[in-house]
Amino acid sequence: MELIEITTYFKNLQQEICHQLEIEDKSGKFQFDSWKREAGGGGVTAVLSKGRILEKAGVAFSHIHGPMPNRIATRLHQPEGAFFHATGTSLVIHPQHPFVPVIHMNLRYFEVETGTAWFGGGIDLTPCYIDPAQAQWFHQQLKSACDTGGAELYPLFKKACDEYFFLPHRNETRGVGGIFFDFLKPGDLFSSYTDIFTWIQNIGNSFNPIYTALIQQNQDKLFTPKEKEFQCLRRGRYVEFNLLYDKGTAFGLDTGGRTESILMSLPPEVHWQYQFIPEPDSPEALTLSRLQPMNWLEFKA
Amino acid sequence: MELIEITTYFKNLQQEICHQLEIEDKSGKFQFDSWKREAGGGGVTAVLSKGRILEKAGVAFSHIHGPMPNRIATRLHQPEGAFFHATGTSLVIHPQHPFVPVIHMNLRYFEVETGTAWFGGGIDLTPCYIDPAQAQWFHQQLKSACDTGGAELYPLFKKACDEYFFLPHRNETRGVGGIFFDFLKPGDLFSSYTDIFTWIQNIGNSFNPIYTALIQQNQDKLFTPKEKEFQCLRRGRYVEFNLLYDKGTAFGLDTGGRTESILMSLPPEVHWQYQFIPEPDSPEALTLSRLQPMNWLEFKA
Repeated sequence: MELIEITTYFKNLQQEICHQLEIEDKSGKFQFDSWKREAGGGGVTAVLSKGRILEKAGVAFSHIHGPMPNRIATRLHQPEGAFFHATGTSLVIHPQHPFVPVIHMNLRYFEVETGTAWFGGGIDLTPCYIDPAQAQWFHQQLKSACDTGGAELYPLFKKACDEYFFLPHRNETRGVGGIFFDFLKPGDLFSSYTDIFTWIQNIGNSFNPIYTALIQQNQDKLFTPKEKEFQCLRRGRYVEFNLLYDKGTAFGLDTGGRTESILMSLPPEVHWQYQFIPEPDSPEALTLSRLQPMNWLEFKA
Repeated sequence: MELIEITTYFKNLQQEICHQLEIEDKSGKFQFDSWKREAGGGGVTAVLSKGRILEKAGVAFSHIHGPMPNRIATRLHQPEGAFFHATGTSLVIHPQHPFVPVIHMNLRYFEVETGTAWFGGGIDLTPCYIDPAQAQWFHQQLKSACDTGGAELYPLFKKACDEYFFLPHRNETRGVGGIFFDFLKPGDLFSSYTDIFTWIQNIGNSFNPIYTALIQQNQDKLFTPKEKEFQCLRRGRYVEFNLLYDKGTAFGLDTGGRTESILMSLPPEVHWQYQFIPEPDSPEALTLSRLQPMNWLEFKA
C-alpha cells in the first residue's frame, strides 16, 4: 500500500461525493478552493452554499506534510520535527430542510518517518428531528459497511462514537451517533495496513448511497416555520459541540490550520434562545429525550 | 468591608442595570429566574428577549458558596474542599440594531476561608461596525472611571483586555477592547480591600451612563439588510471567542455551572458564511482592519 494510493482515494472520494450531492441538490454548485500550506502540502476545500436542499455543504480534501510541529508531536507522542504526512477527506452537510439530517464524515491517514502510521475517522448523523426508523436504517448501513472488516468492529466503533459526540453541559448526544475510530493499525482488529485501507474504502464508499437515500426520503416532506426554528436551535448545539469539545477543530486551529476550511463545519444560520423548553410530548420534546446513547439496531417503536 | 455589602452591591447593580435597559428599550421586559446551587448558594438570571433595541440581553447575579470543588481548587491553587464564596454580576447585551454595539461587563469577588480574597472583572465593547469616535469616547469614560483608583490602572487593564479578547485563528480582537483585571488584592495598586471595593463600584456605576449614551447615539440610524447580515457574521466571531477561548465559559461549564445562565452570552441569531471577504474599502473592510489592539485614546481620524 503506497501513500499515493491513499491520497488518490481520498481525493477521488471528495469528487464523487461533491458530484452526487450536486445531482441530488439539482441547483447548488460546489466552489473548489485550492490552498497550500507554507510548511508543505495543501488541500482543496469544496463548499456549496444556498442550494435547493443543501444550505451549506463542505467537503474537504487535504494532504499536508513536513517536519512535525512541536504541539502535534507532543499530542501524538512522536519526536519533534519528525517528517510526517497527514491526508484525509472530511465533510459536514447542513441541509436547509429540517427533516433532512446533518451528516458528518471524516477519514484520515497519518504516517510518520519513524515508521508508525494509522487510520482514523467516522460517520455520524445529527437529525434535527429524530426519526427512529431512519436512525435504525442508518446504523444498519454502517454495520454492513463495518462488517466487511469483521463483526467485532461495529459495536466497538458505535460505542466510541456515542462517547465522543456527547455534550456534557446539555447531557445530550449530538445526534443519533454512528461510528468513530482512531489509531487503527495492524493488530487485534486488522492483520495488515492493506486490510485497513480496504475497509476504510468500504466505509467511504458507503457515504453516497446512505446520504442519497436520506435526502430522498425526507426532501419532499412539508415543514413549518416552527420546525425551521427548532432546526436553528439544534444547530446551536452543533456549534457548541464543535467549538467546545471537538478535538479536530481545536487541533486544527491550535496548529495553525486553514481557519475557513476548519470552520466550514459551522451551520449557515444558528439561533440561541434562553431556556428553550419544548411543550411536553411534542415532537421537539421527543427528539430531545432521544439524544442519549441508544441501541438503534434493536430499537422498537 | 463585609461580604454582605459586596453581594448587596452586585445584586442592586443587576436591578439598576435591568431597570435602565428597560427604560431605554421602551418595549422589552426582563424575565427573572432564580436558581439554587445544590452545594450552596444560587443566583438570579435576568434575560430580555426580542425588545425594540435589545434582541437579547442577559444580566446575571450569583452568590455561590460551599466547599471548593477539586477542579476549581486546582485552578486557583487553593486547598481542596476549603470553604469559599464567589459572587458577581455579569452581562452581555446583543442589540438588534447593527449600529448599537454589543457590550459585556463582569464584576466578581472571590473569598476563601484560608484568608485570601480578590476582585476581578472588566467591561469591553464589540461594535459590529467600529465608529472610531465612539470607541475613543468609550475608552475615555473607562479611563475616567479607572482613574478614581489611580492613573496607573487604565493602561494596565486596557492592555490586559486587548490580550484577553483576541481570536488568534482570525488574527482579530473581539471588538474595541476596554478594561480587564483579575486577582485584585491590596498591594502595589490598592492599599486595602475597601479601596478596591470602592473602585469596583465606580466601574460598575459607570455602566448605565456609558451604555445609555451608546444606545441613544445609534438607535435612530437607518440600516440596510446588508448591515444586518454583517452583524450576524460578526456575532459568529463572538460565539467563536466565547466557546473556544473564554475562560469563564469553560470554567463554568466544566465545573457544573448552570448552562443556560452561562450561555445566555450567545447571540440570538448568528450566521457563518464560508470565506466572507468584504469589498475593498467598504465599511465592513474598514471595521475588520481595525480589529487589532489600538490606542483609541490617541486615535485621530
